[in-house]
Amino acid sequence: MTDFNFRVTHTDGLARRGLMTTPHGVVETPAFMPVGTQGAVKGVTHRDLASIGVQMLLSNTYHLYLRPGDDLIARRGGLHRFIGWTRPMLTDSGGYQVFSLADRRTVDEAGAHFRSHLDGSPHLLTPEKAADIQVQLGADIAMVLDECLAHPASSDAARASMARTLRWARRGRDRFLALGAGPMPGVVVSTPGQAQFGIVQGGVLPDLREESARDTVAIGFEGYAIGGLSVGEPTDVMYEMVSLTTPCLPADRPRYLMGVGTPEDLVESVARGIDLFDCVLPTRNARNGQLFTSEGRMNIKNARYAEDERPPDPACTCYTCRTCSRAYLRHVFQAREINASTLNTLHNLHFYLDTVARIREAITFGRFESFRRQFHQRLSHQPHDS
Amino acid sequence: MTDFNFRVTHTDGLARRGLMTTPHGVVETPAFMPVGTQGAVKGVTHRDLASIGVQMLLSNTYHLYLRPGDDLIARRGGLHRFIGWTRPMLTDSGGYQVFSLADRRTVDEAGAHFRSHLDGSPHLLTPEKAADIQVQLGADIAMVLDECLAHPASSDAARASMARTLRWARRGRDRFLALGAGPMPGVVVSTPGQAQFGIVQGGVLPDLREESARDTVAIGFEGYAIGGLSVGEPTDVMYEMVSLTTPCLPADRPRYLMGVGTPEDLVESVARGIDLFDCVLPTRNARNGQLFTSEGRMNIKNARYAEDERPPDPACTCYTCRTCSRAYLRHVFQAREINASTLNTLHNLHFYLDTVARIREAITFGRFESFRRQFHQRLSHQPHDS
Repeated sequence: MTDFNFRVTHTDGLARRGLMTTPHGVVETPAFMPVGTQGAVKGVTHRDLASIGVQMLLSNTYHLYLRPGDDLIARRGGLHRFIGWTRPMLTDSGGYQVFSLADRRTVDEAGAHFRSHLDGSPHLLTPEKAADIQVQLGADIAMVLDECLAHPASSDAARASMARTLRWARRGRDRFLALGAGPMPGVVVSTPGQAQFGIVQGGVLPDLREESARDTVAIGFEGYAIGGLSVGEPTDVMYEMVSLTTPCLPADRPRYLMGVGTPEDLVESVARGIDLFDCVLPTRNARNGQLFTSEGRMNIKNARYAEDERPPDPACTCYTCRTCSRAYLRHVFQAREINASTLNTLHNLHFYLDTVARIREAITFGRFESFRRQFHQRLSHQPHDS
Repeated sequence: MTDFNFRVTHTDGLARRGLMTTPHGVVETPAFMPVGTQGAVKGVTHRDLASIGVQMLLSNTYHLYLRPGDDLIARRGGLHRFIGWTRPMLTDSGGYQVFSLADRRTVDEAGAHFRSHLDGSPHLLTPEKAADIQVQLGADIAMVLDECLAHPASSDAARASMARTLRWARRGRDRFLALGAGPMPGVVVSTPGQAQFGIVQGGVLPDLREESARDTVAIGFEGYAIGGLSVGEPTDVMYEMVSLTTPCLPADRPRYLMGVGTPEDLVESVARGIDLFDCVLPTRNARNGQLFTSEGRMNIKNARYAEDERPPDPACTCYTCRTCSRAYLRHVFQAREINASTLNTLHNLHFYLDTVARIREAITFGRFESFRRQFHQRLSHQPHDS
């Protein structure tokens, strides 16, 4: 039914190293997916991504549905072929962006009614529609539509939302299975063997999180995501939610922590059993001049770097650190050159990819805890820029 | 006195192939220099430039003088080291940008008085100052300060401007030679062996052009540029000015046609004895969605490309044409992704670099005229987008 497979190859405490097989290739986990919102990671080419070891990309269903449209992409052979990325990809459900539209959307049991940010046209995103769009896009992994709860939320609101997310998950799964079982009018299956992940919700309430995890697993998906975190709650609360959720998920399925996070978050979440991440932080912050380094964050626009000939991170082997001084990076940032975004993004993504590669290596050799301790020590070694 | 050398290795009619030796390496001519205004070519990294065969970059003295400043760049070891570009470079004199400031500048015999577009601070660019700044920047080739005449200009205005340009050329050359002869307070010689080119002016008046060429050559420079063309005059007038100027220039010195032009202009100017070009056209038009192809110009935002799976130019071997369809390029352009600028710039620069490479090859084998004919035929093969 699916070409999707996941195998844990090494464990070290709760941390796992594994191989996730998808229709477009194998992903070594733990893995970090850069965000290519509209079928492109802002500021870098696919070639750049491949050169720094990106295994898998995330693209946003909401944006691609509105422009150029999933019908067009399906006619062109699916998202991989349309954007020219041959390795694995994941699409979100579109829900997160729709819920972010605030005054442009309303939500009821059917789904999310919203107006396009491009032309104001009305749309209805249902669990079934989210499955249809993603089947047409044809990423290797599709996500079910979930309801994204704002933080903070009342206990009642969190429970109601979690329950709706479960009902939507059932509908989304049914549709996905039906699409896999045979032709449906108006829906092109761009990638046979696509997998679908369920999403655990429940806000910051331990009982709800556990209930959501148990009932989502009962529906049955190829993998499980933890959603609704990193939305404003304290970091220790986020870690606690991850800690209590992962034991409720099957050991033989990948676990994806959505929209997280800082380099520290990656290490701490792997320590709690997470396999897969995505986040806009490395790319968005790069465009704002913030670099992630092995010794903390660096705001390259800071005047102190005006004549600093050192690379941003002397411990880094990326193209930017091999060829650019802090002085030059500050100059191109101040001069508003497009290259500033490109060079900073190359570095930040390299730092994230290098971090998960080091995590994988540490797990293999049973020294994840010592890696984790040294990683945090080094980050606190000197004062950060922010 | 200078590490600069030029040798014509092949001729074919008036077209020449040659080797220009500079302190940072050898440039095969005819050559095209992409414009890296502020020490960066907009949208692409140095690595990208090297990958498409860019031999030499142009940077703008006006911009670098104002930010980060030639003093800072000299302290950091010169422009090559500051920006991390190890191959040859040329800087303009800063005059063209200053003259473009219109209501922010006045010109007298001393030089050009102007106010910075960044902070309004007052500055005076003299022929001596232009030499000093460029010696501190340390590009392989520096340009003398010339007066840039607006087109159209009266005969009297053109003559007066041409005469002033000659007086400035004498002053600029004297200063350049003095800087090469021994230490000067406040000026760091970043690249020993830097060459300086004179600039022929004279508007669109044949007599003035010839007089300017003769008297500039009499001053004596390592190479000669033709300035003040491609500023609004008809193309055939530009070609005529080039045709009558090159015979007045010494055969053993490189000839640089400043700020020109279209791919057709490159071929036609080589046919008239030009060796070196720079132009913002391939990079600026790329950012506006216009691609130069072997069959004409293509506006990638055109709706007809929405589902066109062909590469922009099926005859092209660049990264963009090898990996992107017209449909994808249109999508990222419409979606305002930074990558649109990068991908289009990579293609356009590759097209320009490939064109001069083909020109060099044609000259070597004595078939430049047949290349020239086929080049124009192919461009007129099908209707352009604009």
